[in-house]
Amino acid sequence: MSRLIDELKKLPGVGTKSAQRFAFHLLRSSDEDAAALADAVRELKASLRLCSICNNVTDVDPCAYCSSPVRNQRLICVVEEPTSIASVERTRNYMGVYHVLHGTLSPLHGVGPDQLRSANLLSRVERGEVDEVILATSPTLEGEATASWLATALRSSALRDHAVKITRIATGVPAGSDIEYADEVTMSRAMEGRREL
Amino acid sequence: MSRLIDELKKLPGVGTKSAQRFAFHLLRSSDEDAAALADAVRELKASLRLCSICNNVTDVDPCAYCSSPVRNQRLICVVEEPTSIASVERTRNYMGVYHVLHGTLSPLHGVGPDQLRSANLLSRVERGEVDEVILATSPTLEGEATASWLATALRSSALRDHAVKITRIATGVPAGSDIEYADEVTMSRAMEGRREL
Repeated sequence: MSRLIDELKKLPGVGTKSAQRFAFHLLRSSDEDAAALADAVRELKASLRLCSICNNVTDVDPCAYCSSPVRNQRLICVVEEPTSIASVERTRNYMGVYHVLHGTLSPLHGVGPDQLRSANLLSRVERGEVDEVILATSPTLEGEATASWLATALRSSALRDHAVKITRIATGVPAGSDIEYADEVTMSRAMEGRREL
Repeated sequence: MSRLIDELKKLPGVGTKSAQRFAFHLLRSSDEDAAALADAVRELKASLRLCSICNNVTDVDPCAYCSSPVRNQRLICVVEEPTSIASVERTRNYMGVYHVLHGTLSPLHGVGPDQLRSANLLSRVERGEVDEVILATSPTLEGEATASWLATALRSSALRDHAVKITRIATGVPAGSDIEYADEVTMSRAMEGRREL
């Protein structure tokens, strides 16, 4: 019992009290229910893996995006985490594919270029399989550093006779928000990034 | 006394209780202090006016921006309110001038193109005095409608032999924020507005 409580406490936001409640609930529930939970947890790790093309979390390899015939496989949106894909998908008008880095450069936490999963992206570019790479890491310190490092790496991987377009998502005032609430860095970027109408 | 309380209650966020407190404070304070407040209120309206060039609130006409020799008088940033100028100034790297519309198009509140102060901007463009107009209205419904209407009006005012560049500030993910927290409209605009590195 106390072993289960210790394991449950490792879940995010679960303290001793909640863990005890979960454990007693499992104690009271049927053998089948408890077995089903145990199997589901085990299966998750057994069936989920990373897509060999884009590093997205998937149960089939290549993932649904990388094997989609309706998506433009030559347009790649680079994101930090598998969960970031949802942000881009919500826009409902992106029809390219993804590449997941699984992190950002962060020297203080010991994350250098070698810890990021970029090798399979660079080799796709080397083989001339890519027309455009959209760097959609967050406009945070780490995200910007990662975008800037990756842009350089992509440029040096690109074939001489097949230039790859490297773009960065816009930083600016969020839609629906008043410019009076924009901080100075955001407002600076919104002015720099102004587009001709 | 009750006349003063009624007048004080017209200030934003001041109710009967606060107004009474202010009134009693004035009653207790010296004659000079009360007279100084009365004079300051009267003087505000007497000395402040709108700049005849840009409609900014100013005590001298033309305002400090429009008469500045170090600012580019041919680059104009259009904002909704005089207070919006502070947002752009905080970036510390804008060296053009401003134009204040004093509002946004809002048909529901009876604000049409005629209610906005755009005539002096359009005539500057007609006289060929302007190289670029940056539309820095907020990326809200009203702000976008205003930018779109003004872009058309500016284009039809421009001289045939002197094209005016009309630009819009970037809408996108705010600096320092994670793309996972961006709503879908903002993320869409960030993707559309991506820039080549």
